[in-house]
Amino acid sequence: MKTESTTHPALEQLKQHFAVLDDLKQVSSLLSWDQNTYMPAGAAQARGQQQATMSLIMHQRITDPKVERWLGELETTELPETDAALVRLARREYDKATKLPADFLEAFAKQRSKAQQIWIEARQKNDFSIFSDDLKKVFDLSRQQAEYLGYDDHPYDALHDQYEPGSSAQRVKNVFEPLRDETVKLVKAIQNSNVTIDDSVLRQTYDESLQEQFAVEVVKGFGYNFEHGRLDRTVHPFAQDIGKYDVRITTRYTRDFLSSALFGTMHEAGHAMYEQNIADAYYRTPIGASVSLGIHESQSRLWENLVGRSYGFWENAYPRLQELFPQQLKQVPLDDYYAAINTVNPSFIRVEADEVTYNLHVMIRFELELELLSGALLVKDLPEAWNAKYQEYLGITPPSDTLGCLQDVHWSFGLVGYFPTYALGNLMSVQLFEAAKAAHPGIEEDIRQGTFGTLLGWLRDNVHAHGSLYEPQVLLKRATGSELDAAPYVRYLNRKFGQLYNL
Amino acid sequence: MKTESTTHPALEQLKQHFAVLDDLKQVSSLLSWDQNTYMPAGAAQARGQQQATMSLIMHQRITDPKVERWLGELETTELPETDAALVRLARREYDKATKLPADFLEAFAKQRSKAQQIWIEARQKNDFSIFSDDLKKVFDLSRQQAEYLGYDDHPYDALHDQYEPGSSAQRVKNVFEPLRDETVKLVKAIQNSNVTIDDSVLRQTYDESLQEQFAVEVVKGFGYNFEHGRLDRTVHPFAQDIGKYDVRITTRYTRDFLSSALFGTMHEAGHAMYEQNIADAYYRTPIGASVSLGIHESQSRLWENLVGRSYGFWENAYPRLQELFPQQLKQVPLDDYYAAINTVNPSFIRVEADEVTYNLHVMIRFELELELLSGALLVKDLPEAWNAKYQEYLGITPPSDTLGCLQDVHWSFGLVGYFPTYALGNLMSVQLFEAAKAAHPGIEEDIRQGTFGTLLGWLRDNVHAHGSLYEPQVLLKRATGSELDAAPYVRYLNRKFGQLYNL
Repeated sequence: MKTESTTHPALEQLKQHFAVLDDLKQVSSLLSWDQNTYMPAGAAQARGQQQATMSLIMHQRITDPKVERWLGELETTELPETDAALVRLARREYDKATKLPADFLEAFAKQRSKAQQIWIEARQKNDFSIFSDDLKKVFDLSRQQAEYLGYDDHPYDALHDQYEPGSSAQRVKNVFEPLRDETVKLVKAIQNSNVTIDDSVLRQTYDESLQEQFAVEVVKGFGYNFEHGRLDRTVHPFAQDIGKYDVRITTRYTRDFLSSALFGTMHEAGHAMYEQNIADAYYRTPIGASVSLGIHESQSRLWENLVGRSYGFWENAYPRLQELFPQQLKQVPLDDYYAAINTVNPSFIRVEADEVTYNLHVMIRFELELELLSGALLVKDLPEAWNAKYQEYLGITPPSDTLGCLQDVHWSFGLVGYFPTYALGNLMSVQLFEAAKAAHPGIEEDIRQGTFGTLLGWLRDNVHAHGSLYEPQVLLKRATGSELDAAPYVRYLNRKFGQLYNL
Repeated sequence: MKTESTTHPALEQLKQHFAVLDDLKQVSSLLSWDQNTYMPAGAAQARGQQQATMSLIMHQRITDPKVERWLGELETTELPETDAALVRLARREYDKATKLPADFLEAFAKQRSKAQQIWIEARQKNDFSIFSDDLKKVFDLSRQQAEYLGYDDHPYDALHDQYEPGSSAQRVKNVFEPLRDETVKLVKAIQNSNVTIDDSVLRQTYDESLQEQFAVEVVKGFGYNFEHGRLDRTVHPFAQDIGKYDVRITTRYTRDFLSSALFGTMHEAGHAMYEQNIADAYYRTPIGASVSLGIHESQSRLWENLVGRSYGFWENAYPRLQELFPQQLKQVPLDDYYAAINTVNPSFIRVEADEVTYNLHVMIRFELELELLSGALLVKDLPEAWNAKYQEYLGITPPSDTLGCLQDVHWSFGLVGYFPTYALGNLMSVQLFEAAKAAHPGIEEDIRQGTFGTLLGWLRDNVHAHGSLYEPQVLLKRATGSELDAAPYVRYLNRKFGQLYNL
């Protein structure tokens, strides 16, 4: 492999071709952001048409026969590391776009669109049977999709790889099994502990604009750059990059629950800082993109949980929060507030779960979608299997499908193989945080002082800046010296919640 | 000409081709809207790149050789009226895009971009000489542009036709000359009248959110559809259609001057209602677009001035305004308020001009750009010529270039031949309003009652719905039975301001 950058006509043409593609992706992202923030309701259908046209134009560009020609030429040429990565990523995108026949894509899109509608109805009526047939079709089509995409071991791998390149069902199992056993043990210990945490201090009335003011102060402090971003209000919070120079986040404010906007904003800022800090040199190239959903989630969870729910962070931040909400918090000691934001409570809904139980929600979904995809579990039997696993891992049985297997939108969107990335993100967040602290032992003290530059700098240099240059596993190994591993996360949970629950 | 719609393969392909183009135009409009509202400052350069890419993709589509082939085939085929119009409009777009060579377009774009920067500097430093060379280059390039586009009579026609299809310098002169003489006479009469109007009631402190509340009530009442639109705050107010199902307006609120947001919002809503009411059947076709800037302006000025500054409108609306601002207006009689919002006062700045003097500002620019384009006036002599005309028509001499020939951004943007459309819009607004009242004599009484459905319905049926089906002159003739004519506007001014100023 050469180390010097060379100019090569096919490479230059490929780069220019994908640079324009990147602009189009950015534009499409703005359409989404607008749709979820300020678009008038009556524009929904027209927006769907605009997005379809953008998808068409992008698909035509990706599948342009010239791309195959350039790739063929470049794949037999010795190239420097970044150029080789660029070619590998372009190939990945080209293959993904060309392997799926147009009629399959159309049938899948139609079925997803139908399934989403039916899912909404089934959820409202709390009746899985309405949704069952359409969910079965989604899994049938997903299986077909896996066949088109190709895999070595399990069809799940082909689907999961779309969200976590290079990962596989076996790799996920290897970390989920020990994680599950240890987590179930910890949950039981917490339930049997003599400590009961009262989080009612978080459930007072909190003025929304003051919540917003505080959230902005916090994420500005973390290093989220408002010069290249903004914070808006939406029903479903999200981070959206419109290219790395324009990465926007949204939050939902709840007047009678402080945590949702506060930790939600930290979470989205964590996602956004990843995008904002991809190296400028990779802008408008296939390398200049986040590398996987798992790595993405590791960044959001790191800032939300490892920083935002840490004692050290609140030593500095709590007095300011008390200043903004004297009536609600003046009389509440830091220790009580810290315990409240870290309450562990097995519950039915994944998105409301605490740090300990969250991964169990994810693992249940992973295990079920593996069985659904292989046919070992029939879709019509999903509610029963779902509820049994909740009883087994969390000790609770959902009283309804709406609080059970109808809660997530993912499968109706055709997103099979996606769920594990949430838990992979948690695991990697601790691996990365520990590596950062090993490199800079002062980080814990920095956080207690309310400064985050060293931590963000390490993340930027070791994760963000690389974009998609390295596959996720390589990136993790380079940054931490280790493979994906559940042990650091388990140690982290046991230490933190052992203290809180006096175990 | 056939009257039945036929299917014709080339026509279907042309339609599909332009439907996708329409989506892309809508997307590009959203990029502009976002840039002027919520885009983070640091995203400006990336946004420029995104827009350039969208322009490239659209230009490739318009100039696709298939378009020429389809047009060639369809232009020799007998087609029903709407299909024939569609072909005519597609041809117009194709010709415009193909007549200008790529290297000319690039040189012009660069010069415009440079001229805009220099214009800002010259304006800040109040020094036309800084800008003179670059303005000369803009006019040189505009002359070249006219040669590429082609014209019969005067190069001005080629430029003006881009904004007002089918119009010409001679046609503009024919109406401007009587208009100028009559207006100058009226201005002098007002200046010599024994009436002095005091508009200080408008220059009290008006809470901005109450101003917004009232403006929203007013434009909702007019018929601006918020289901397909929204109102935001910007430094420079505008209306932006992102397709007819999403037409957004913006306003600037001034705490110490009531008129700017109030009449500005009516103005932009007038533009927006035009776009919102183009017939659904023309959506995503070349017909489904506003036909000219003059017609557009006729709609904004009709709602802003003929409705919004009328006595009848305020008979209904004034009590509500007094209710929102009791401290400011409770003691002010309707007649005084009506006089205040209709003060005539020759001033230096076009965008702040009243109904009487506004057209004089426009005519001065028209006369000067004609001379600049023909070379009869040298760019370096512009300030002198500008000031002389202000003295002649308005009786005032600008004390500086910033208050004189440096006030408008248009020429630095390469917009030569654009200014007359402002005044054409004024003239047509009265012609159309009179035709609407002739068809529905109850409209004046409706306005006094605060209902606008009949007026909007007439405008929709006779102007908006047609989109670009008819050329502007044809549209005007069909709607009013008359050609473009200054006389109705002059009569309107003389009657309204004759009463106000006791002439």
